[in-house]
Amino acid sequence: MPRKNTEGAETCPVARTLDVVGDRWSMLIVRDAFDGAARFGDFQRRLGMARNILADRLRTLVEQGVLALRPAADGSVYQEYVLTQKGADLFTVIVALRQWGERHLFEDGEPRSALVDKAGGEPLAALVPMTADGKAVSADATVVQRPLQ
Amino acid sequence: MPRKNTEGAETCPVARTLDVVGDRWSMLIVRDAFDGAARFGDFQRRLGMARNILADRLRTLVEQGVLALRPAADGSVYQEYVLTQKGADLFTVIVALRQWGERHLFEDGEPRSALVDKAGGEPLAALVPMTADGKAVSADATVVQRPLQ
Repeated sequence: MPRKNTEGAETCPVARTLDVVGDRWSMLIVRDAFDGAARFGDFQRRLGMARNILADRLRTLVEQGVLALRPAADGSVYQEYVLTQKGADLFTVIVALRQWGERHLFEDGEPRSALVDKAGGEPLAALVPMTADGKAVSADATVVQRPLQ
Repeated sequence: MPRKNTEGAETCPVARTLDVVGDRWSMLIVRDAFDGAARFGDFQRRLGMARNILADRLRTLVEQGVLALRPAADGSVYQEYVLTQKGADLFTVIVALRQWGERHLFEDGEPRSALVDKAGGEPLAALVPMTADGKAVSADATVVQRPLQ
């Protein structure tokens, strides 16, 4: 798909990331992989999406190195999809998406799931963008520097 | 779109967020709004997307309260799209997407843009999911708690 971003999609890490996981289904597949889904049938049952679309998204995520395909842990004939380190690093993105939804898309007291740490049982702390020396920073105190052409 | 997630899309904040901004174009529009784009023509020039799709995505983002439409700051007949507080809070999501791309989708030394804080001139610190008491936490040390039905 040709693009004409100001800085060119090729040098913008946000655009590149969205080329890999900027599709609603792909991100939900990654979410469910974090939540323990591993087999084709797991994803199909949880997401209720068409098998051909699911197969396509899984194949792309494997090609991109976000998921890897392994023989099932139980020794059966099944194969399982597991997050690679690259995929596991999307945890921060999933947490950011979750926290924005929690803050802005639910009424007070409305039932929703919570992401808690197993040891403490408490929801994770809010992610806060910070400067290199650890001060909270808002968008208007930042600027995108383009690479020299 | 009917969905059959395990927990039901309606109680998962990740799924709700993706219903609002889980579209590649919507997220790029938000990115460009952070970067100073305000008028229809700004977005069109930066993104090179079809006018009807851009108009549709902008309308949805306004309906969702991510962007607001205001008379242009220069007093001209133009209108401008500005991020609401809800939209500005997507900064954390954009930073998370950017940092994952920086880490995994660029070769060492490959030209890319950088997001720096204006005061210090340094790239932002890496976002790190943490427990409520401030310890870094990986996905496998967390669990999603479903609401009681």
